[in-house]
Amino acid sequence: MDKIRLYVAGLGNNISALVQGMSYYQSLEPNGHQPGIRNRKIGGLKVYDLEIVGAFDIQEDKIGKPVNEAIFTPPNNYINLGLDLPASDSVVENGLILRNGVVTGHEKVVTALKQTKAEVLLYSLPTGLQWAADEYAKCALEAGVGLVNCTPEVIARNENTLKAFEDAGLALIGDDLASHLGTSTLHRELLSVLLRRGLTLESTYQLNMGGNEDFRNLREVGASKEISKKNALAQEGLDLEAVDVIPSAGFIKSLNDRKVAYVNVVARGWANTPINVDLKLEVQDSSNAAGVIIDLVRIAGCSQRAGKSGFNLAAASFLKSPPSGHSSNEKELELAAFQELNASIEMA
Amino acid sequence: MDKIRLYVAGLGNNISALVQGMSYYQSLEPNGHQPGIRNRKIGGLKVYDLEIVGAFDIQEDKIGKPVNEAIFTPPNNYINLGLDLPASDSVVENGLILRNGVVTGHEKVVTALKQTKAEVLLYSLPTGLQWAADEYAKCALEAGVGLVNCTPEVIARNENTLKAFEDAGLALIGDDLASHLGTSTLHRELLSVLLRRGLTLESTYQLNMGGNEDFRNLREVGASKEISKKNALAQEGLDLEAVDVIPSAGFIKSLNDRKVAYVNVVARGWANTPINVDLKLEVQDSSNAAGVIIDLVRIAGCSQRAGKSGFNLAAASFLKSPPSGHSSNEKELELAAFQELNASIEMA
Amino acid sequence: MDKIRLYVAGLGNNISALVQGMSYYQSLEPNGHQPGIRNRKIGGLKVYDLEIVGAFDIQEDKIGKPVNEAIFTPPNNYINLGLDLPASDSVVENGLILRNGVVTGHEKVVTALKQTKAEVLLYSLPTGLQWAADEYAKCALEAGVGLVNCTPEVIARNENTLKAFEDAGLALIGDDLASHLGTSTLHRELLSVLLRRGLTLESTYQLNMGGNEDFRNLREVGASKEISKKNALAQEGLDLEAVDVIPSAGFIKSLNDRKVAYVNVVARGWANTPINVDLKLEVQDSSNAAGVIIDLVRIAGCSQRAGKSGFNLAAASFLKSPPSGHSSNEKELELAAFQELNASIEMA
Amino acid sequence: MDKIRLYVAGLGNNISALVQGMSYYQSLEPNGHQPGIRNRKIGGLKVYDLEIVGAFDIQEDKIGKPVNEAIFTPPNNYINLGLDLPASDSVVENGLILRNGVVTGHEKVVTALKQTKAEVLLYSLPTGLQWAADEYAKCALEAGVGLVNCTPEVIARNENTLKAFEDAGLALIGDDLASHLGTSTLHRELLSVLLRRGLTLESTYQLNMGGNEDFRNLREVGASKEISKKNALAQEGLDLEAVDVIPSAGFIKSLNDRKVAYVNVVARGWANTPINVDLKLEVQDSSNAAGVIIDLVRIAGCSQRAGKSGFNLAAASFLKSPPSGHSSNEKELELAAFQELNASIEMA
Repeated sequence: MDKIRLYVAGLGNNISALVQGMSYYQSLEPNGHQPGIRNRKIGGLKVYDLEIVGAFDIQEDKIGKPVNEAIFTPPNNYINLGLDLPASDSVVENGLILRNGVVTGHEKVVTALKQTKAEVLLYSLPTGLQWAADEYAKCALEAGVGLVNCTPEVIARNENTLKAFEDAGLALIGDDLASHLGTSTLHRELLSVLLRRGLTLESTYQLNMGGNEDFRNLREVGASKEISKKNALAQEGLDLEAVDVIPSAGFIKSLNDRKVAYVNVVARGWANTPINVDLKLEVQDSSNAAGVIIDLVRIAGCSQRAGKSGFNLAAASFLKSPPSGHSSNEKELELAAFQELNASIEMA
Repeated sequence: MDKIRLYVAGLGNNISALVQGMSYYQSLEPNGHQPGIRNRKIGGLKVYDLEIVGAFDIQEDKIGKPVNEAIFTPPNNYINLGLDLPASDSVVENGLILRNGVVTGHEKVVTALKQTKAEVLLYSLPTGLQWAADEYAKCALEAGVGLVNCTPEVIARNENTLKAFEDAGLALIGDDLASHLGTSTLHRELLSVLLRRGLTLESTYQLNMGGNEDFRNLREVGASKEISKKNALAQEGLDLEAVDVIPSAGFIKSLNDRKVAYVNVVARGWANTPINVDLKLEVQDSSNAAGVIIDLVRIAGCSQRAGKSGFNLAAASFLKSPPSGHSSNEKELELAAFQELNASIEMA
Repeated sequence: MDKIRLYVAGLGNNISALVQGMSYYQSLEPNGHQPGIRNRKIGGLKVYDLEIVGAFDIQEDKIGKPVNEAIFTPPNNYINLGLDLPASDSVVENGLILRNGVVTGHEKVVTALKQTKAEVLLYSLPTGLQWAADEYAKCALEAGVGLVNCTPEVIARNENTLKAFEDAGLALIGDDLASHLGTSTLHRELLSVLLRRGLTLESTYQLNMGGNEDFRNLREVGASKEISKKNALAQEGLDLEAVDVIPSAGFIKSLNDRKVAYVNVVARGWANTPINVDLKLEVQDSSNAAGVIIDLVRIAGCSQRAGKSGFNLAAASFLKSPPSGHSSNEKELELAAFQELNASIEMA
Repeated sequence: MDKIRLYVAGLGNNISALVQGMSYYQSLEPNGHQPGIRNRKIGGLKVYDLEIVGAFDIQEDKIGKPVNEAIFTPPNNYINLGLDLPASDSVVENGLILRNGVVTGHEKVVTALKQTKAEVLLYSLPTGLQWAADEYAKCALEAGVGLVNCTPEVIARNENTLKAFEDAGLALIGDDLASHLGTSTLHRELLSVLLRRGLTLESTYQLNMGGNEDFRNLREVGASKEISKKNALAQEGLDLEAVDVIPSAGFIKSLNDRKVAYVNVVARGWANTPINVDLKLEVQDSSNAAGVIIDLVRIAGCSQRAGKSGFNLAAASFLKSPPSGHSSNEKELELAAFQELNASIEMA
């Protein structure tokens, strides 16, 4: 089975984690324990069965460098795992640029995708650039390349775009990846236990901080993220008025790419007596993304190869906003989709 | 609908929480918010629709006192909620005693249960007295009274005993109540999220402490509790070797009846990068019990009145060791049992 | 000994804490335990020996109300301690206003200070209004009233102003009160222990949050506060590059006037092995101020009565920026100043 | 300046930390940063200027092994720092043994100390073996070797023993080393800040846990340690009744030689409003000892060489029970002693 040929748009910490992680897993005993892996194989592909054939970025320091070097260029600050990374043939190319309302670079991007025989484009730019999301999607369609969208920008949820990928026989997986182990997930579970047990929530807060560029940006423009994170906690019986979410409490330089979150829950039990829960989570922020990207890209690539275009339900539970939304029977649908995927690969 | 006539064996903090809590809820607006309540009504009965018609204990300071006074006698140290408790007609009676291998008090107990027209006996003695559990069960059977067992002692799981209660048309609900919001529940959920997401558990510990008599005893004799608490965490994919549980890290006098638990989880994510979760739980220990007792007693009383003897599946999810064990479709069975219970009450 | 006649400028949570606290202590046994008090007596005056003879504010909802009512007017949200506060004769008056570069209200303020025979004016407006600090100081001088400045605005550090108060025989105590138990104090102590012991600081952060107006404002305009708080940690051997301080991580409505702070310290010990300290502080924010105001006002009032004008060193250790700065023999100077103060009062 | 020839009695984690740490510091740039070091030089000696010339132990697995191998023999579980340790000529010898009330091995120990030309003996056996402390002290005296006592056993506080070392021109430094950064130190500082500020302590607890043999032993026999740790917190204004200390909350295998401590402080501020402080400390337990041992041994060796026998005040602040006790001018005395030590070395 050939490796999936992946092109990335946006060479930040997530790609550093992805590249170093693949190299780390390849260095382990093939049949030994692989820590931190959800699916050892998807459609027959292992976690290191991706090949990064190219990368777009707009940061001058990165452009022209081989991918295995550019991933360490600041402000990237994912830890250097100290592995002996194989030299990469792919150098970072100039990506799409918006200047005075005009997007340039479209043809160059299409050409690069075609020439490298990329199968999937990973859209991983900073949050908030809907114009870039739209344009990269167009480029992928034109070049005949599937797309995985890591960001909250609307791509897979746009019905027209989804239909266009389906008609073109291309995979489209998105939008907005759910962290491998995120604050929202833990916070949601804590609240869920409480509510199921009939305790009364009085108030709760969640605050996140880190030392990568995301936390610097979010400190300033966290309002939409705050709403999205509060929505991620929404569930039957939960009064959102009692919930405070701070997407970025602060940029803490010394944390680098690590993320720290504090969660507090105050509730009332029998006889109105108080319950207090305090939780601190520390996690490598971009590992949290790469641990999910590795599955999404394999789902996209294998689906496409097996002739299943558009969105694949196997990806739904690791996305915050899949086009299908989230359903109560998500787990079964996901399992069925995985089985179908594996079956079709074996037949092929 | 008449109140359930409840006799209690063991007048500790749990009963203090139960008595004060019922009084607290009765003081609220009938249709207003009731904090910390799982089921406002069971079989038509509200949370204050129990009447404590008597209590057994063996502590001299408590014997002869009305229940509403005896609940404040040390070593009881559940908070005094400062409510104006109604004077109780029931005084604490001498319970069963084991001396030189001989149990005394059987007849007196049976007589008291009969004379007070008790419907349910709540077995709530300190952990570890299997002889007392056995003998109180015999007394209940002889007096024609249902039984709820709060402790890990084997009563409902004893097939012969269960059959005897069934044949006598009496309810038998047990064994070992699960806390309203316990450390094990939170710890189990944290581990479950991790495992579902494909992260790798490296190590985890849980430690509990408090200032009531339970924590003094458990500090010395926690071995069996440690095993039972580790079992409570067991789930697919969990290596119990990686788990440490300290049932009582220490008796901290100043905590009184409050319980504090610390939980730590260390795991590995993508590229073997570390994840750390720290959690602190503070809760009123005996509220944690009373919030469950209130449901178990109502289930026992209503079942019995409706002609359903023996164990009722409606109680399974709030017991650590129900005779039925725990099943994956517990929630549906519980719901069905509740509906049947409510229906039979309405017909009656 | 007569009570000190105090006029307040800015009727926020601090004054609510001050007023309610004085009433609380007066309700206790005179010779019994007084929790949370640093100096039971200063110059013979107890903690409830202040009389609030008037208050300036510019918030319409507060103006015209008696002080004992206005302290509960939103956005004030210090807890209501449920005490039976004595009705106050003093109603809140319109304070100084700046409109189109012109300050109005000067005469009215002077007149009010004179008519009420105020001895001390407490300057307690929101941070950042240097024009108001200057003008209220002028009014105090004109009316022959001492001044205590709770805010970081420059008043006592202005040499001309200090001289003017000295010449007029008036006390001037400021600037910027140090919290009774603040995050900076705890953080500073943790770092100090580490450095004294020869451990190597790697990184440290501090973040603060709360639900009163201060935390809403600081979230937006925290830059100067960040510098001032970092300076508060400065000490020999400390690399400020390793320190991150977030004055307001977020406005958490449910906290009301409570403040929560998280502090983390990462260091290296023998053989470069890691040390990690995590600290969480929860405190009633405005109690933290009132517990210091009560001493500053008594020092100001008693000094003035004893004929000691200007700044009194007895106040230095509870101010962030006293005109004298902080010195290593602060404790001795403070003690001497207190002794002199008490002696002069006794002689008088 | 020659290295100090050190013989150790008890080859546990502390010695593993000491040996590996010295090797670590030697691997660094000589004039570069040395993390975690309190005194780079004492009497001209660097932190790696000790030579371990021999070791006594009674554990069969260790005896006969070179020191650089034996330090990794279980139950030793200090982290292996992965350094390339130099092969050691010294092999572990059988130490003193108590059997049926009779101590054997005295001559062998004296001979070994003499033959290796040891200058200082480090007494580092498990806590509680006063007989061994006494006998090793006799051996040291007989062999003409100074002694450093890491344990709470009484050696330097025994007036006769101290005089005997003084008369023999030998150094005697003890008893009971204070951790480089211990729970008691942090806990004491927290309480001290509170009390100095006039806040009222309501209750406080401290609990410690770890995965080395100390924590297994202390869980069972912690009573005397509890008293000693409570005494370490004693200070003016502190009500010890409000303090709970758990020396070992539990043996947590996965922690290995790391120690985790939780400290909680509940206090009351102005108007009786509550203050809560939670602290978690994580530290490498035996680094905490080795970071102090390195200073104590250098003080002992240099004092002795400079002709200063008996106890040296330079060591007082890093011992829990120095023969001199602790005094308020400890810092000045320590400084003076250090200066004298350095001066006498330079003259020699």
